Amino acid sequence: MISSREEVTAQILAQKVVKGIKWSTVAEAVGLSKEWTTAACLGQMALDKEQASKIGEIFELTDEAVAWLQIAPYKGSLPTAVPTDPLIYRWYELVNVYGSTIKELIHEEFGDGIMSAIDFSMDIQREPNPNGDRVNVVFSGKFLPYKTY
Amino acid sequence: MISSREEVTAQILAQKVVKGIKWSTVAEAVGLSKEWTTAACLGQMALDKEQASKIGEIFELTDEAVAWLQIAPYKGSLPTAVPTDPLIYRWYELVNVYGSTIKELIHEEFGDGIMSAIDFSMDIQREPNPNGDRVNVVFSGKFLPYKTY
Amino acid sequence: MISSREEVTAQILAQKVVKGIKWSTVAEAVGLSKEWTTAACLGQMALDKEQASKIGEIFELTDEAVAWLQIAPYKGSLPTAVPTDPLIYRWYELVNVYGSTIKELIHEEFGDGIMSAIDFSMDIQREPNPNGDRVNVVFSGKFLPYKTY
Amino acid sequence: MISSREEVTAQILAQKVVKGIKWSTVAEAVGLSKEWTTAACLGQMALDKEQASKIGEIFELTDEAVAWLQIAPYKGSLPTAVPTDPLIYRWYELVNVYGSTIKELIHEEFGDGIMSAIDFSMDIQREPNPNGDRVNVVFSGKFLPYKTY
Amino acid sequence: MISSREEVTAQILAQKVVKGIKWSTVAEAVGLSKEWTTAACLGQMALDKEQASKIGEIFELTDEAVAWLQIAPYKGSLPTAVPTDPLIYRWYELVNVYGSTIKELIHEEFGDGIMSAIDFSMDIQREPNPNGDRVNVVFSGKFLPYKTY
Amino acid sequence: MISSREEVTAQILAQKVVKGIKWSTVAEAVGLSKEWTTAACLGQMALDKEQASKIGEIFELTDEAVAWLQIAPYKGSLPTAVPTDPLIYRWYELVNVYGSTIKELIHEEFGDGIMSAIDFSMDIQREPNPNGDRVNVVFSGKFLPYKTY
Amino acid sequence: MISSREEVTAQILAQKVVKGIKWSTVAEAVGLSKEWTTAACLGQMALDKEQASKIGEIFELTDEAVAWLQIAPYKGSLPTAVPTDPLIYRWYELVNVYGSTIKELIHEEFGDGIMSAIDFSMDIQREPNPNGDRVNVVFSGKFLPYKTY
Amino acid sequence: MISSREEVTAQILAQKVVKGIKWSTVAEAVGLSKEWTTAACLGQMALDKEQASKIGEIFELTDEAVAWLQIAPYKGSLPTAVPTDPLIYRWYELVNVYGSTIKELIHEEFGDGIMSAIDFSMDIQREPNPNGDRVNVVFSGKFLPYKTY
Amino acid sequence: MISSREEVTAQILAQKVVKGIKWSTVAEAVGLSKEWTTAACLGQMALDKEQASKIGEIFELTDEAVAWLQIAPYKGSLPTAVPTDPLIYRWYELVNVYGSTIKELIHEEFGDGIMSAIDFSMDIQREPNPNGDRVNVVFSGKFLPYKTY
Amino acid sequence: MISSREEVTAQILAQKVVKGIKWSTVAEAVGLSKEWTTAACLGQMALDKEQASKIGEIFELTDEAVAWLQIAPYKGSLPTAVPTDPLIYRWYELVNVYGSTIKELIHEEFGDGIMSAIDFSMDIQREPNPNGDRVNVVFSGKFLPYKTY
Repeated sequence: MISSREEVTAQILAQKVVKGIKWSTVAEAVGLSKEWTTAACLGQMALDKEQASKIGEIFELTDEAVAWLQIAPYKGSLPTAVPTDPLIYRWYELVNVYGSTIKELIHEEFGDGIMSAIDFSMDIQREPNPNGDRVNVVFSGKFLPYKTY
Repeated sequence: MISSREEVTAQILAQKVVKGIKWSTVAEAVGLSKEWTTAACLGQMALDKEQASKIGEIFELTDEAVAWLQIAPYKGSLPTAVPTDPLIYRWYELVNVYGSTIKELIHEEFGDGIMSAIDFSMDIQREPNPNGDRVNVVFSGKFLPYKTY
Repeated sequence: MISSREEVTAQILAQKVVKGIKWSTVAEAVGLSKEWTTAACLGQMALDKEQASKIGEIFELTDEAVAWLQIAPYKGSLPTAVPTDPLIYRWYELVNVYGSTIKELIHEEFGDGIMSAIDFSMDIQREPNPNGDRVNVVFSGKFLPYKTY
Repeated sequence: MISSREEVTAQILAQKVVKGIKWSTVAEAVGLSKEWTTAACLGQMALDKEQASKIGEIFELTDEAVAWLQIAPYKGSLPTAVPTDPLIYRWYELVNVYGSTIKELIHEEFGDGIMSAIDFSMDIQREPNPNGDRVNVVFSGKFLPYKTY
Repeated sequence: MISSREEVTAQILAQKVVKGIKWSTVAEAVGLSKEWTTAACLGQMALDKEQASKIGEIFELTDEAVAWLQIAPYKGSLPTAVPTDPLIYRWYELVNVYGSTIKELIHEEFGDGIMSAIDFSMDIQREPNPNGDRVNVVFSGKFLPYKTY
Repeated sequence: MISSREEVTAQILAQKVVKGIKWSTVAEAVGLSKEWTTAACLGQMALDKEQASKIGEIFELTDEAVAWLQIAPYKGSLPTAVPTDPLIYRWYELVNVYGSTIKELIHEEFGDGIMSAIDFSMDIQREPNPNGDRVNVVFSGKFLPYKTY
Repeated sequence: MISSREEVTAQILAQKVVKGIKWSTVAEAVGLSKEWTTAACLGQMALDKEQASKIGEIFELTDEAVAWLQIAPYKGSLPTAVPTDPLIYRWYELVNVYGSTIKELIHEEFGDGIMSAIDFSMDIQREPNPNGDRVNVVFSGKFLPYKTY
Repeated sequence: MISSREEVTAQILAQKVVKGIKWSTVAEAVGLSKEWTTAACLGQMALDKEQASKIGEIFELTDEAVAWLQIAPYKGSLPTAVPTDPLIYRWYELVNVYGSTIKELIHEEFGDGIMSAIDFSMDIQREPNPNGDRVNVVFSGKFLPYKTY
Repeated sequence: MISSREEVTAQILAQKVVKGIKWSTVAEAVGLSKEWTTAACLGQMALDKEQASKIGEIFELTDEAVAWLQIAPYKGSLPTAVPTDPLIYRWYELVNVYGSTIKELIHEEFGDGIMSAIDFSMDIQREPNPNGDRVNVVFSGKFLPYKTY
Repeated sequence: MISSREEVTAQILAQKVVKGIKWSTVAEAVGLSKEWTTAACLGQMALDKEQASKIGEIFELTDEAVAWLQIAPYKGSLPTAVPTDPLIYRWYELVNVYGSTIKELIHEEFGDGIMSAIDFSMDIQREPNPNGDRVNVVFSGKFLPYKTY
């Protein structure tokens, strides 16, 4: 019996390696962006019934696993507070080095509040470049102002 | 006597509040992006002589402080490993929730390696939106592949 | 020269003890709830010009301090990740013991998403009770759904 | 053989997903609030014999599991000191940002002491709102004064 | 200007050493137990006006410091989560080694709930013993049951 | 094969729930205090041969498990440095809030040294009280002075 | 089914001990340096198809394991943030003691930027020495300058 | 009065910025490598009388500061266990990613033991390279075998 | 299949309890000190072929386990950075309380450097004493001086 | 005014450097071992009146500082839980690597209990050795058995 979403994620990852499935193919089949679809497969988003069935087919999951995909998961995809993986660490470093800068500039433009991480989308693209291709990532989040009451 | 860059950052912040200076004005005066300029003023980048003098003028810094601005600083702008400020935390959360997704998609597109946080630029823009304006942030970093040897 | 909002908070706290000012009096003078006003005085909210002047008068702050009150602060009012003060710890304990319950019930009612801590208000009231008066605290936050994209 | 309450919680969660049971239905069957019932099912409260049997029926638990439900559990429902799940983190953030405010206002009203997290109840409700429905959570705890001796 | 209770505690400690005052003498003067009085002087309890004045006289404190003594303090008297001082560590060790035992036996006697650390008193006594005198400490706290609702 | 005392503790706990055994009954059978006996069953004390056999009978343990009961265990009964369980946390809080007080008063009475946590006994009793029964816990430890050499 | 690279690493280590294979032999078979090859076998590098097959043959891995070797792994080879193993700790100590020195000297020579840990190679050699042989380790990484933008 | 080596380091750093001194110039004046000299100036090595006087002259230190330079310092040059500065973090990352590799290869070559971090020297050089100059760092430490006894 | 030294240590500990073997007997059989032999059995030292075979016989290990005994292990025998076991904690406390003293006295006698923990031996003896027997532990390590270069 | 023992320790250290005093000279003057005397000067032991006066003379301390020397201090001489200084870390490493060995051998010889860190003495000696002199440290502590009750 499956008692956590992590077990479903592990099954998806195992099947992905064995079958050589690509995230972009999965996203296309589900009809959503590759960013959202991958996050969902990695246990960070809840899927609706149809999306879950589709994912279930692709990764040959049981009905029970498909049911788990529709539950809002306990989110957080990293094993430690400061990530050890170099690729992910670079992002943590950006938050560390540029965090106060981002804070200052959003406040200068919008006043006190935050950029939502929920009403949010992300887009990752390759930018060809003669000095070495670049990774371009666009984060878009609604500004939410603190209100007085 | 000044014995760390943090003291210079504190002077800049104090002057900014008293004088009501905007980061975008500083950036214009220095002739660089508001993102890089703010990061530099917040003690995360080393400035060259001319840039440092300009910043020194704007914030009425001593020669000693201007000299410190040209030293490569000990970087990291946050007081705790997991940031407590809600705006900055949302970015930490994005790394935590989407970190494994970003890793998967960059590897799917580029193979093993990282997105550089050094050969890197950032652009923050307001996107008007009838449901509430959005913060759009573009991160652009060179892809650096791991090499076999 | 003042180089952080914490210094202003310290001045407010010192004046409050010396003068014996009550938060509810301050709130009335500012014309806002006692919850928001106290949070603002404790360095967790940015005030507008008029509010800041009012606070400045009450606590006899300098113009510089009043200017700092209008800056969006680096938020987070506790000295350690797990608070040691018994009153505040009880709240941390509630999040620890009831956190998964709150998560389950909000998801059951609303689906995947969060309760906003920004589009948010709080109300603290005494409820007389023959077995000992009770503290009643209402937290009200907008539900923000995760969206697919 | 079952050697911890966590195993029973895992069984309940697994059954809940497979059978599509709702917490509110469970609460109704047990005749208690949905908040307390969910906390109990998630391993945070001890049930009496009758309540445990009822839960046992609903989730098809063994007698051994039903016996464990009646033991006062080792409480704490979160895997890390600072929770990574965004919904639960928002609550941690509220304690962090508003903690000192709550402390000040309770002391102003009641004097030195705490709000009990044991003689305590919680109520979670949806408040319809044209700008987006709101989550309203009422926390009610007895005030316990520190006594001199 | 004094901006935290810690400063008052430091003044008390400094005066105590210089003047060679004993805690038991202070307690007698205040008319309360030596345990509560010492905790109050060390910044863990709020005093009423009369008690604070008395303490103020004994330690030659300013009016401002006496005002601070009447404020409910941010409690917690140890600099690290795991105390390094051998005497205090032994107590931490007792909680660590005997914690689960205390939990089991209180639950066996009283059911689910806690022993209050607020409706609480403590008494420290020397017990003469030919094999070496013993420290006897009695902790007395009201049992608070978890209630269903 | 059993390779740690924790496995034996788990077996004891599982049997205790299934059979509904009380710690006080076990203590009586072994002929020792309920405090020491419970601590021993929870893996914090080494038993002698006779005591271990008795425990083995009561909880239907194998000879191998009985052998493990006679090994001095790796002590420490809590899963985290700061305990999350509310009952046990209150004791941690007492050490945190009253730690410096206990230190001051023991030093005032005995001079520099510690209260032993080894040459130590504990007694937990219910004290009937019309305002709610109380938990009384006596800690008794030999005073050990630091010596000059 | 294999659901993480760690399982493959464990298989490789188990086979290495049983068969008495040397890393240098593996490196020769794969035709790459012993440093890169060992890191790859220990789960820190992604191998291409041919390299993975070769490793698979040597350690008698299944096709599934060989497929996992070609996936970019979640990197980081140490179980704790501060390593406990004396050999590895010495390296952590070198970073701790000499870290600021390395930073100063690289900045003095190259200006602000970093030495890449990705465009990087390592070479470990024995240097015979009458006072005891020495371990010589060469780290070579591309200098990456911070750029203004 | 100076009561720690850190104060001397701060004076050296302040003077270095004001006077624009280079570490390599200091090293030449002292007649030792730039690596050792820099580490010593940054408070990681004890200097002998002559070296300390020379450093004192260059940085215009008082006799008291010069005396402190000759005391074996409490070593460790980084403010956090996991360094936040990108340049130094890359070194921490190398230890994390390659640590187990270094361990395996040193043991394969030398048997059980460590590479000394005391009987140790370091050399940092620029290697010109058409694809971007490289930083080459040679670490040389005596191998110390564990001995049986 | 065995994939870590910890598994072998667990087997040894399980056999030791079942068979009632003493470390001193093992040491005699291997012909080395009880300190080194115990450390080796507990997974902290690599054994040579003959020693490993001997240990294998005594604890009835498989050939695979005996092979693992000859691998240099990942050292560190404690589950947490600050040990919870009272006996081991006392040693941690000695390092904490006397650490700076040991440092001062070794530097006063030898100059800057360390006492080796590799070229090291330990001897534990009982010293009969009418006031209670004493544990005497001798640590002997080669002094390693920091060298200038 | 002095408000903590740390300030006195800082004064002693500052005077020691300026005057070039040796710990062994201080110990002789006080008539106690160099180990205890150094620990006392470093703020880890309470001195009696006569010893404190003697120390006060040697280091030219004020009466107030001399009074502080007679107060039982908050012990613990290291700034971090895992020490960064290489000399002190080696001791931490010995506890980590040999901790379980020491535990096993003391229990084998004495049964369950601990070696006292209070009824304790330490002796540090240089042992001349042609292969490099050795540091020999003898730790002697009374064995304290756990008792049943």
